Amino acid sequence: MELMYLNTVWIVIAAAMVLFMEGGFSLLESGFVRTKNAVNVTMKIFVDLTIGALGFWVVGFGVMFGKDAFGIIGTSLFGSPEKIALSIELPGAAYVLFQMGFAVACVSIISGAVAERMNFKAYIVTVALICTVIYPLSGHWIWNSDGWLAELGMKDFAGSGAIHAVGGFAAFSMAKRLGARSGRFNSDGSANVFAPSNIPLASAGAFILWFGWFAFNAGSTLDASNTDLASIALNTMLAGASGGTAALFLTMKKFGKADPSMMINGVLAGLVAITAGCAFVSQWSAILIGVASGIIVIYATLFVDNLKVDDPVGAVAVHGFNGVFGTIAVGLFDQSQGLLTTGNFSLLIIQLVGAAVVLVWGLIGGTIIGRVCEKTVGFRVSKREEEEGLDMSYHGIPAYNEIERFTDIPTGLYDFEETTGISVARASSKKERVV
Amino acid sequence: MELMYLNTVWIVIAAAMVLFMEGGFSLLESGFVRTKNAVNVTMKIFVDLTIGALGFWVVGFGVMFGKDAFGIIGTSLFGSPEKIALSIELPGAAYVLFQMGFAVACVSIISGAVAERMNFKAYIVTVALICTVIYPLSGHWIWNSDGWLAELGMKDFAGSGAIHAVGGFAAFSMAKRLGARSGRFNSDGSANVFAPSNIPLASAGAFILWFGWFAFNAGSTLDASNTDLASIALNTMLAGASGGTAALFLTMKKFGKADPSMMINGVLAGLVAITAGCAFVSQWSAILIGVASGIIVIYATLFVDNLKVDDPVGAVAVHGFNGVFGTIAVGLFDQSQGLLTTGNFSLLIIQLVGAAVVLVWGLIGGTIIGRVCEKTVGFRVSKREEEEGLDMSYHGIPAYNEIERFTDIPTGLYDFEETTGISVARASSKKERVV
Amino acid sequence: MELMYLNTVWIVIAAAMVLFMEGGFSLLESGFVRTKNAVNVTMKIFVDLTIGALGFWVVGFGVMFGKDAFGIIGTSLFGSPEKIALSIELPGAAYVLFQMGFAVACVSIISGAVAERMNFKAYIVTVALICTVIYPLSGHWIWNSDGWLAELGMKDFAGSGAIHAVGGFAAFSMAKRLGARSGRFNSDGSANVFAPSNIPLASAGAFILWFGWFAFNAGSTLDASNTDLASIALNTMLAGASGGTAALFLTMKKFGKADPSMMINGVLAGLVAITAGCAFVSQWSAILIGVASGIIVIYATLFVDNLKVDDPVGAVAVHGFNGVFGTIAVGLFDQSQGLLTTGNFSLLIIQLVGAAVVLVWGLIGGTIIGRVCEKTVGFRVSKREEEEGLDMSYHGIPAYNEIERFTDIPTGLYDFEETTGISVARASSKKERVV
Repeated sequence: MELMYLNTVWIVIAAAMVLFMEGGFSLLESGFVRTKNAVNVTMKIFVDLTIGALGFWVVGFGVMFGKDAFGIIGTSLFGSPEKIALSIELPGAAYVLFQMGFAVACVSIISGAVAERMNFKAYIVTVALICTVIYPLSGHWIWNSDGWLAELGMKDFAGSGAIHAVGGFAAFSMAKRLGARSGRFNSDGSANVFAPSNIPLASAGAFILWFGWFAFNAGSTLDASNTDLASIALNTMLAGASGGTAALFLTMKKFGKADPSMMINGVLAGLVAITAGCAFVSQWSAILIGVASGIIVIYATLFVDNLKVDDPVGAVAVHGFNGVFGTIAVGLFDQSQGLLTTGNFSLLIIQLVGAAVVLVWGLIGGTIIGRVCEKTVGFRVSKREEEEGLDMSYHGIPAYNEIERFTDIPTGLYDFEETTGISVARASSKKERVV
Repeated sequence: MELMYLNTVWIVIAAAMVLFMEGGFSLLESGFVRTKNAVNVTMKIFVDLTIGALGFWVVGFGVMFGKDAFGIIGTSLFGSPEKIALSIELPGAAYVLFQMGFAVACVSIISGAVAERMNFKAYIVTVALICTVIYPLSGHWIWNSDGWLAELGMKDFAGSGAIHAVGGFAAFSMAKRLGARSGRFNSDGSANVFAPSNIPLASAGAFILWFGWFAFNAGSTLDASNTDLASIALNTMLAGASGGTAALFLTMKKFGKADPSMMINGVLAGLVAITAGCAFVSQWSAILIGVASGIIVIYATLFVDNLKVDDPVGAVAVHGFNGVFGTIAVGLFDQSQGLLTTGNFSLLIIQLVGAAVVLVWGLIGGTIIGRVCEKTVGFRVSKREEEEGLDMSYHGIPAYNEIERFTDIPTGLYDFEETTGISVARASSKKERVV
Repeated sequence: MELMYLNTVWIVIAAAMVLFMEGGFSLLESGFVRTKNAVNVTMKIFVDLTIGALGFWVVGFGVMFGKDAFGIIGTSLFGSPEKIALSIELPGAAYVLFQMGFAVACVSIISGAVAERMNFKAYIVTVALICTVIYPLSGHWIWNSDGWLAELGMKDFAGSGAIHAVGGFAAFSMAKRLGARSGRFNSDGSANVFAPSNIPLASAGAFILWFGWFAFNAGSTLDASNTDLASIALNTMLAGASGGTAALFLTMKKFGKADPSMMINGVLAGLVAITAGCAFVSQWSAILIGVASGIIVIYATLFVDNLKVDDPVGAVAVHGFNGVFGTIAVGLFDQSQGLLTTGNFSLLIIQLVGAAVVLVWGLIGGTIIGRVCEKTVGFRVSKREEEEGLDMSYHGIPAYNEIERFTDIPTGLYDFEETTGISVARASSKKERVV
């Protein structure tokens, strides 16, 4: 039997699992935002998986994996990415599908940080720019064998830097540029916190993300004859577990409560941080990386708050800060070249350069997106739309319509300012009215 | 190593993913219906996965894949389907499990269209009839190598026709026969729309369905040595993405809102439409098919509404119309025999015949079911049950009991007319009362 | 191609699916409990997956699979479980990850039974004790080839006894020791039932559990060259389906309602009961075992209630009683040694011994945990905490914050006694206040 067959099955399943992570992002983010914006966040994830996936397929893949020019950009495979010639036994189509999952994950990181006050059309523009140019460009530098960071020797196995740090710091600059949600920060320098709408839903999202992460990391072997994929998966598990454990104990000690959003973000921080090094570090190092990430995520959240940047779901702390940390951690813990394991400084310096590059590139990318949106469709919602909630403003429907259950007021008396979801089309046929 | 081993692993995992789609149907449908019927829809999906699966195993599989009689019906393997002799290297049990996922998917299509006003026992009858006879019969014609449509040369790789069109048009005739939900259409010809109860939940369902669809389509290779399974999975992704994109832009342009139910149904429409052709068409054709399906689903929804047929979740538009379209699209885009790709008409004509057959067979099947129910357990709920909601009428429990959170009214004061869920059994022990 | 490659892929995917079952437990349990404790249950599952996984990795795996001493306990591999020497072609890391999923499943069973009134720190202690000692010890007896029950010839393929019965009866003794939730039983001997908070969420949990169970059982082959894994998966499906069918019909007949929690628990009962025998029994036997389990779960629920033991989710009936039944059922239906299939009594006797051992060991384990907690962190919450709900008491945030949707009261007026979730950290920075 040919290895090609096994690789194909392996990567197709892994790709499906990675793409399923979008469902995780959707639930996580819609559970973390306020009820009046829960539909909008969900719709943004659908934009990632539809427009983002198509944009990556037509353009982005070529920019990332096409024939290299100057170590900077790919220049081929546009509109036919599956024609890529791979050095491993794997159909191009499987590779394309798997990479597509990575591209849409990158933009989904941003979705949460800009939640509750961003123009929906601006988000469509964001998705298009991230998936066709911004993510593929830095991805080219790191993962195209002729990219300049790859030539330098940067190691980022499954994308702590290439995906999470880029997405996380693009999210940071966009959240900063957008400004905070109305009422989030007070003039006296104090801040208010809005309660997440649905914690069980957010938790479900975290479990889906964790499930997909095994494929995200272990699937990045691409080749099933690399039996390291087992220890990669185990490292992924251990880092997520220790990230969550550290965040749990720290919040219990520091704040007296076991905070669910910090627990969730601690787990995700561990998963993000191990993503670069999962194939290069030992199990005990994975645990150390996880513990550190669970601490980092809490202080990074406070730090972002202190900067008066409003990140409703903590995406910058989870993906940005821990993406950078995970990239650097390879330089410390890599079993053959790490500082702490071998005493050798050279890889660490390369990883620091790489981490700085993805951080700065994320910030630049977010700034470019903000400017493009401001000049075209508009970046931020109007005051009235924000107050009403983006669900009614953009989508004509609230997330939850359980009112009749609780108050015995029939749904029919509920005053929809516009029209309701499935009815937008129907109501427009003039013969229907929405109740 | 033997190919058999890989095939077994591949199809067992694929079957698990296809069966997991039932969870997707459950969340999608319970999120789209009104709160007072959300439990009932969920319970119907459990009936699919339990009674439906058993019925298919004992009887349906034999009707579908048993020894052919007259190109019409299978006549063996009853009660021991795993004894089937396959021409590929795959254990019979793996094939049976995978096919079981298809059978229950077919009936789950119906579940949404008849929601909110169908007798629960009638639904049990529906599941039994669909899984033992109606779906397996037309399945036999198309997928048993001796079936008459197979002999004709009809191509339906993973079931746009055999599953989705049959289920979708059975759903149409049953929804029509049942009549609309009370208050849905007015005497002056206008219509009212009921707000879906839970959009984030419905979205979660869509993501689960999408995840499972990769296995639905790529798993239909059955043989992992067919490395086309990678491009099948990629085509599935591209069609879903372009279906959603088309529906999104069309609703934004036509109605001024980005409608979540149309976005979701646009994605599903693309997935349905590519199901027949995923193994036969190019990537660009998959995108075209997806775009068309995203447009079709919107106009089909309006069309069904205009016929005064009440389909609460849009299942007829998604599965029925796009199942037929997907079947026909093979005749247009098939790389070796399609009209647009080769100028050859013959396959298109066969596909048109096949599409007409599944459409008509679906209508007949739904009619038979309706008549059987009317003569036996009753088809439609009573007016009082409908008004009260099927959750309390049939299951003795509301979907959501969050009232104390919102109003500080203790649960104990909430007036359950009957008894609550887990307590049905307990309360019956006379010593317990429900609070 | 080497078999090792396929085995690695198979077990890594299976492990991911088994670990994803934790998401299923989380949704199931948070949907079944009252709203005011829904976050707490979710947090407990996160503790399973983090602290539990780490504890098993460092200590538990060695106790279970380390070098045997006296047939009782493992004595090696602490802190480096992946160094295990396996007789099959599989990397140690894959085996460790898969077994980790089993260990956390065992403790997740307990989580539901002790819900709504257990000290959160006591649950952390519980997780630590179960995952490091209690589960691994009995696991050693059954699954370490030198364990005393293994030497006796006990057959428990995927853990009806080793996981479910141990977890279920530990849950029983802990629930009994904790006492019932306030208001659950009246002084006149009657009982009250609390309505589950969210049935669609609980259903979603059941579907995820079902999905993962295919990997739980079929993955236990560990070796993909064992093509029995197809019939194992099919048996799993058939038993779950018939468990649900039996519970459905029995509740409809006995109580006049199709009870969703009994339907869900019927399915789970079937899955639990087939777990021991899935590799040893025929398809028809799997159906019989499923039917019996669906009946057992209902009467066991009533029986536990009559003992005045308060199990909010029915975990004892599902996992405890059906874990024992499934273990015994191997002695009846095993194709080569079962009483009903071969007339031979000897296996049945061994299975009865094994079932008694796991039952008693579960009770002892739960008692040890209760005593340890009572002497250290405290076992039960205070009256005030229970009344307020564990979500606010321990986690500072309610599960659902949808109030503004329903009442037009802005979230800001909602009176959080403490602080809200993501804000615990933020609010503590003194400059923020929670709205």
